[in-house]
This record gives sequence, C-alpha cells and structure tokens, in this order.
Amino acid sequence: MNNPEHAAADHAATAADVGAGADARPEAPAPTPQARIEDLEDRWRRAMAELDNLRKRHVVELGRAKAAERARVAAAWLPVLDNLELALAHADADPGSILQGVRSIRDQAVQMLATLGFPRDDETGVPFDPSRHEVVAVVDDEETEPNTVVRVVRPGYGESGHELRPAAVTVAGSRE
Amino acid sequence: MNNPEHAAADHAATAADVGAGADARPEAPAPTPQARIEDLEDRWRRAMAELDNLRKRHVVELGRAKAAERARVAAAWLPVLDNLELALAHADADPGSILQGVRSIRDQAVQMLATLGFPRDDETGVPFDPSRHEVVAVVDDEETEPNTVVRVVRPGYGESGHELRPAAVTVAGSRE
Repeated sequence: MNNPEHAAADHAATAADVGAGADARPEAPAPTPQARIEDLEDRWRRAMAELDNLRKRHVVELGRAKAAERARVAAAWLPVLDNLELALAHADADPGSILQGVRSIRDQAVQMLATLGFPRDDETGVPFDPSRHEVVAVVDDEETEPNTVVRVVRPGYGESGHELRPAAVTVAGSRE
Repeated sequence: MNNPEHAAADHAATAADVGAGADARPEAPAPTPQARIEDLEDRWRRAMAELDNLRKRHVVELGRAKAAERARVAAAWLPVLDNLELALAHADADPGSILQGVRSIRDQAVQMLATLGFPRDDETGVPFDPSRHEVVAVVDDEETEPNTVVRVVRPGYGESGHELRPAAVTVAGSRE
C-alpha cells in the first residue's frame, strides 16, 4: 500500500477525508487506481466490521446498564427495609414506639422516591389537571371552586413526563 | 454509477461482498477503475455515517433504558409505601393492628427484592463464606463448629455476582 498514513489514521478518519488520496502531496506520489481501490476496500471492510462490533457491544452495554440501575434503585430501598425491621424489633420492648417509627419510615420512603426523580403529588385545593390526576369521585362542595381537588385518595408519584402513577383524587362538581 | 445493485443492497452488504464488483457478471460490463473507486468511496462514506448515527442512537437508547428501569423498580415499591400508609391510618382506630401490619409489609418488601433478583440472605448455621458474609464479630461458642455463622446482624440481599450487599454476621471462633 503506497498510502500508509491512511491506515494509521483510520480510527480518526471521517467521510470528509475520502477524497484526500486524490490531493497529491508534494512528498507522496499519487496512488495508482489499483492502490486506491485496495485502500478503499480496506477502509470499507474495517468500517463494516466496526459496525458489527458496535451493535454487539451495545447489546451487552444495555444489559449491564439496566442491571446496574436495577441494583442502584433496589439498594436505595434497603435502609427503608432495615428501619422497618428495627421498628419491629423495638416494638417488642416498647409497643408504643412503632407508630412514630413507621411515620419516620414513611417519610424516608417518600424522600427516597423524590431523590430518584419521583416526587410525591398529594396537593389538595389545586385545579384538576388530567395529566397528573385521576378522578375517582366527584363530590358536591358548595364552598369549593368547581373542578378543584378536594381530597387525595392515593398520592401520585413523579412529574409530568416521568410519572410513576397519577394521584387518585376527588374533585368538586360544578355548581347548579 | 454502473453498478447499481451494490447501492440497493447496501444495508445487507457484508465485508465478504467487497470483491464482488470484480466478478464480472455475464450481463454487466466490468466497472472501470474510476467507477469502482466512486462506488467504494460511497460505501465507505455511508458506513462511517452509519457508525456515527449508531453511536448517537445508542447514547439515547441507553438513557431511555436506564430511566425505564429506574421507574420500573421504583414503581415496584409503591405498594409497600401504600401499605405503610394504610397501616398508619388503621393505627389511629386500632393501635394494636400496626405491629401485624408492619410485619406483613416487611415480608412484602423482602418478597419484592427477591422478585427483582435480590433474594434475602439471613441463614445461620452455614459455613462462613467471604463472598456473601461480612464478619462483624467472632464469638466463642463451644457447641458450634468453628467458622459457622452464629447470628445475622444485618441480612444481605442478592446472589453471588449480583449482590446488593453481603450479610453482616457473627461467626464462631476456632476452638483452643
């Protein structure tokens, strides 16, 4: 091959380089057509092999990334579980302590979900929003603006576009 | 281009095809060297562009797969959190109910982790295994075989190679 710098720079090469072989440098003789064909066949073969490798590598990487994320999120919950067990252990000695313990654990779990990107949504008094609320009942409430969330039956988690689930709510009906 | 079947079959092409242009088919005239160079330049340019696209696409896919896995695992814990809140709500009416409720929730959380691929490890009486146990104390226990797990201080989760954390244990010391 009378154009060795092409092979050496193969990984950094871009499509813009494709015509470079035709620009005869002062110090290098112009390649013969046959040499140019061999050089291009070589580059094309390498690019196709690299495509094949890249596809295989990404399947492996995807599996690894998912497993790592699964472990990360599962591990984030272990302190919640540990504290549940501590609360149970303490309850034998002091039955009254468990209620306060469980409240703290609930708060810890809610905080954990927010840290993972899924903040709790349990606001009342806000206008009904179909993107974050699921209506389970419409109630008569003379003192409340129609279409306002009166009660959160089950809190939602997550933000618009990244929702784990919507908040299940009751809303005030329209006034007659 | 006097070799149009190459362009059409571009996506299915493999490196083994690279010499096919030289096998003159009865119905097609052999390409001139210049046509062969143009064809190869075109193929190489496409392969490089495809490589570039593939890299970009995989970065996006990786991010999406991680976000989906994060949401899936976080959502798996919502029933645990919901039940904690139910237990708290019932506790106001029946303070004695919370202990049994919290025990069930603990079991639910342990079951959830197992389903995600991280079974609980809290066995005693098994030989110490550095791949799953972390020794927090060595105790004298005349009735137990040396190097046996006597007590699990904090359970481990996960299996060999997919561990969230090892079990923290006390083991029986060697006999004098």
